[in-house]
Amino acid sequence: MSELTVKALVCDTFGTVVDWRGSIIREGKARWAAKLPGIDWPAFADAWRGRYGPAMNRVRTGDLPWTGLDVLHRMMLEDTLTQFGVTGLSEADKVDLNNVWRRLKGWPDSAPGLRRLKKRYIIAPLSNGSVAILTNMAKFAGLPWDMILATELFHHYKPDPETYLGAAAMLNLPPGEVMMVAAHTGDLDAAKALGLRTAYVHRPKERGPRAEPKRPAADAYDYVVDSFVELAERLGT
Amino acid sequence: MSELTVKALVCDTFGTVVDWRGSIIREGKARWAAKLPGIDWPAFADAWRGRYGPAMNRVRTGDLPWTGLDVLHRMMLEDTLTQFGVTGLSEADKVDLNNVWRRLKGWPDSAPGLRRLKKRYIIAPLSNGSVAILTNMAKFAGLPWDMILATELFHHYKPDPETYLGAAAMLNLPPGEVMMVAAHTGDLDAAKALGLRTAYVHRPKERGPRAEPKRPAADAYDYVVDSFVELAERLGT
Repeated sequence: MSELTVKALVCDTFGTVVDWRGSIIREGKARWAAKLPGIDWPAFADAWRGRYGPAMNRVRTGDLPWTGLDVLHRMMLEDTLTQFGVTGLSEADKVDLNNVWRRLKGWPDSAPGLRRLKKRYIIAPLSNGSVAILTNMAKFAGLPWDMILATELFHHYKPDPETYLGAAAMLNLPPGEVMMVAAHTGDLDAAKALGLRTAYVHRPKERGPRAEPKRPAADAYDYVVDSFVELAERLGT
Repeated sequence: MSELTVKALVCDTFGTVVDWRGSIIREGKARWAAKLPGIDWPAFADAWRGRYGPAMNRVRTGDLPWTGLDVLHRMMLEDTLTQFGVTGLSEADKVDLNNVWRRLKGWPDSAPGLRRLKKRYIIAPLSNGSVAILTNMAKFAGLPWDMILATELFHHYKPDPETYLGAAAMLNLPPGEVMMVAAHTGDLDAAKALGLRTAYVHRPKERGPRAEPKRPAADAYDYVVDSFVELAERLGT
């Protein structure tokens, strides 16, 4: 399929480009063993991330005014620390631990695939992460974005329509010239309904060994692939 | 001087990073000779750019609501075409000509210097150009930005304070950890007054051979340099 009409690829980040769960587990065991002894890091990562959807929904439904993800992550961290019985962590340590979201590593194919895609397309995250999180994460993980698109710019979280349409408008492109890339069908379905092109990247290990997502049908989206390298190959870059 | 406290360099773009005048003259002679015969391209470039400050001031003073630079450039182009007696240019050609602002080339030191600075700092434009202009320009000119900051994000044009403070806030940094880099003293003076660090890059040819800017005193800003490569050397990157 010729994809010369697509000018920009905008990518979900947490889970699609970076391995948040594995990164938190690794950092927890390596850096936090002394200050947070006895923590079950896979359970901690899952509990922290499990508060993500509900926290964003408080903003999306108007229960909270616009609140960026650094602040939501911190609120979610406080609840998670309480859940795990942690008390006495210093403010500096909490800030540092909360910044683990800036220190996530890419899946092995992410940076190599993105470098190839960048040769022909504008590549950007379109994430619920803040601009600061995404910018620092890109430098940490070597992600070669052309620019940073964050839903923060629109004061709406995905899957609100303002985020997908705002991204296209900011790039001065019609929605049909923008392709949403994500490992999550809800994200892609919202983008597709607004006229964006879509690519699904299968990430079976995102939520750990016991929560493998169901792979959608091959014709559910414009592309259904297993990696950014495969997406680059399918797009001929 | 140690600059470990500076985390991000935000750079004026038109004139500081890219040679708008030389680029428009070159493209005019190479691509527009048939459709726009007899145009004095240096004069055309100066006349078009001469309408830049006044057009932005109409927005800054509230005479116009927020209007992005693609639209202002087009309004300025219409007036410039009229001034030069051009009639009958097609809509498609006007769009294409207006997009010359996305096809500006960097000064020879810009990309090499920025690549060095990128190793230690977050580097971004902080320009009155739109996100779309700056993103496309970066790909055209090979500018290795980490992310794109445009005053469009704040619905204010420089030198309004909202732009400098907005950039620092979006990076989640205090103003003193952000350095404004520009070839224009007004831009730097505004940033300095708000607590940002400042670096002046001398661009004697920006406005052509008859309009060389006065070089400020060496202690007027944190750095006064002749190129991005020199700035990288001074910052030890």
